[in-house]
Amino acid sequence: MELRLPKGTKDILPEEKILQDFIVSTIQNVFQKYGFLPLDTPTLEMFDILSSKYAGGEEILKETFKLKDQGNRELGLRYDLTVPLARFIAMNPQIKFPFKRYQIGKVFRDGPVSSNRIREFLQVDADIVGARTFLADAEVIALTSEIFQLLDIPVIIRINNRKILNAILQESNILDQSAILTIDKLDKIGLEGVKKELRQKGINEIEQLIRLIQIKDIDKLDSLLTDQEGTNELKNLLNYLKLFDIKDIQLDFSLARGLTYYTSTIFEVNTKKMKETIAGGGRYDNMIGMFMQKKQEIPAVGISFGISRIINLIKSEKKSLIDYYIIPINTLEKSIIIASRLRKKGLKIDIDLNKRGISSNLDYANKLGIEKVIIIGEKELKQNKVKIKNMKTGKETLVEVSKL
Amino acid sequence: MELRLPKGTKDILPEEKILQDFIVSTIQNVFQKYGFLPLDTPTLEMFDILSSKYAGGEEILKETFKLKDQGNRELGLRYDLTVPLARFIAMNPQIKFPFKRYQIGKVFRDGPVSSNRIREFLQVDADIVGARTFLADAEVIALTSEIFQLLDIPVIIRINNRKILNAILQESNILDQSAILTIDKLDKIGLEGVKKELRQKGINEIEQLIRLIQIKDIDKLDSLLTDQEGTNELKNLLNYLKLFDIKDIQLDFSLARGLTYYTSTIFEVNTKKMKETIAGGGRYDNMIGMFMQKKQEIPAVGISFGISRIINLIKSEKKSLIDYYIIPINTLEKSIIIASRLRKKGLKIDIDLNKRGISSNLDYANKLGIEKVIIIGEKELKQNKVKIKNMKTGKETLVEVSKL
Repeated sequence: MELRLPKGTKDILPEEKILQDFIVSTIQNVFQKYGFLPLDTPTLEMFDILSSKYAGGEEILKETFKLKDQGNRELGLRYDLTVPLARFIAMNPQIKFPFKRYQIGKVFRDGPVSSNRIREFLQVDADIVGARTFLADAEVIALTSEIFQLLDIPVIIRINNRKILNAILQESNILDQSAILTIDKLDKIGLEGVKKELRQKGINEIEQLIRLIQIKDIDKLDSLLTDQEGTNELKNLLNYLKLFDIKDIQLDFSLARGLTYYTSTIFEVNTKKMKETIAGGGRYDNMIGMFMQKKQEIPAVGISFGISRIINLIKSEKKSLIDYYIIPINTLEKSIIIASRLRKKGLKIDIDLNKRGISSNLDYANKLGIEKVIIIGEKELKQNKVKIKNMKTGKETLVEVSKL
Repeated sequence: MELRLPKGTKDILPEEKILQDFIVSTIQNVFQKYGFLPLDTPTLEMFDILSSKYAGGEEILKETFKLKDQGNRELGLRYDLTVPLARFIAMNPQIKFPFKRYQIGKVFRDGPVSSNRIREFLQVDADIVGARTFLADAEVIALTSEIFQLLDIPVIIRINNRKILNAILQESNILDQSAILTIDKLDKIGLEGVKKELRQKGINEIEQLIRLIQIKDIDKLDSLLTDQEGTNELKNLLNYLKLFDIKDIQLDFSLARGLTYYTSTIFEVNTKKMKETIAGGGRYDNMIGMFMQKKQEIPAVGISFGISRIINLIKSEKKSLIDYYIIPINTLEKSIIIASRLRKKGLKIDIDLNKRGISSNLDYANKLGIEKVIIIGEKELKQNKVKIKNMKTGKETLVEVSKL
């Protein structure tokens, strides 16, 4: 038997998992402050639900892990948390709107593997279902801004509205909707790249389009568009955002976030330094209603965080969770009692389980990144004292047992 | 498309998920106090690893969800967190022993479904790998006891040692090891049931066996056994447990916890009221080493918590996470600013997103189980005041905005 992991999966070792838990709990706390409640749905979903035309579309279906249960039912591993949310809403008519839920869970994509794309990863989503006002969009953007402030990651939140992109295409006399996908690449392939790709698509009269997507001022764009629904919606959102006192936003009329799915507000979070995308979301008013027996429009707006990318940004701050590692020297009984007492105080205490010598114990504490060690020797204990060693500085201090 | 969940899976609604998160974080905090660190392994594992003879055995293999990736590799969904731990240890020789890790994750079993058995469920495990002393076993039992004290669930932790069961069989001249599985049922099917099943297995001389497994005193049992390795190990463990001051333990020489896997200490947590099993574990010194290139004995002891059963025990204590629900009455702008200020203080605040009237807003807060509502009206706001309504008592109080 060859020991190996499935392609595109990885173990998360304690050091990284501690950091992941810190990030996830920071995000979760902010979700809760904004009135979101947790939901959990199964990792497994019926395959026909995951593959319905209202769900992720052709592209994502090719990457869906498929399996069967004992009863020969076709199942799949969820590829996101949004389709399960839509399925949940449709199956639970008792749920009161607006339904503000967050969900933290593994999602799976059987696609190409790279340093940035793996096949099983943690996704953290917050969505508001059943709220039509742009106050909902503003809340989602505000909590996003607060999360990255708390994580101390400088970001720019780029904002656009899907209807503005439609109006820009209309104004430019371009019928091929896929032009939007090319425009979306402006950041990555630059202006010349966009022009080239548009021409390859047979779209030749592009001056107007190029001019419009580069505008930074919403009033200026507004004055140039016939269809002003999108700009009006965005102005509405910006008014709410002012009340939330959000500073790290930027309008970007080239931002698209895919062709389908989003219907109105869209936003994407990029790191200030590397322009890497670490979160994104928007308003999708059509998708959830499609799952209902009685087809209807159910407004929804949400955000999704890419945890593995965020981990990489703050990877340097490694730390151990353990407050003290106790090394008994022929004092095991007393040491256990001291360990219990410190744990009762809420401290995180590890104690030598293998009756090792002091040097191999110090080596162990060091390798685990533990900062403080308590050495409990017979001589010191007779004076009701123990030795505390700071592993970073090497400094040792005698401390009274009662003062630990 | 019919909306449904895969058989044996379920959604966990906010109310239950809040409770689950509370239980899991209580357990996690205790794990950390005892010096355990978090680990995460993929949900997906290679099928040949899950099905190796060192792993779960025939029984569990029949219940393993099997699937293939794009590259036609055979994968499976993990059925526990122990096999992945063994695989992880074998693949990471740099890990320092003792390795104290906890893991929280979904596991999958494609088996029969009942109210107590579902196909996808959350498992919470803590294990110590690479510690031979019974101080390790004592730590695991001590943290288990502390967890149920904190959760306010009265339990009995039944303890035995696998080697004692072997010695009892030997002393009773019984060669058929499967007798252990029958003895294990003493609690469920009673003494007569055990006698009947043993006879069905062709084991007839059972007086000695029945006498020995019913003994409650370890010294008495010890004096009746030729092979005293198990009783010595258990005495050793009991000495450590005394130092931890654990009170809710009980010796039970009929406890077996399956035929294979465990090699020494075994324990099981039962609720005092219903005798339901809600956690269990023990020492398994053979299993992990089997996964190593160079076969060797790697000692390990661990505990596994059944979260869904624990949830059922404290289900009654429902609560909302939200501190205040804000209802603006023509005061949306000021209300948003107040919401932001309260959130900055760390309070969990929800605010009306749908510009509804006061009565439908109160109805919404009520259905969500929110206890306190802030009604922000124009008149009161002019006096720098808002109205706080306690949804339980119906009592309303005027409060100055600055004192919120």
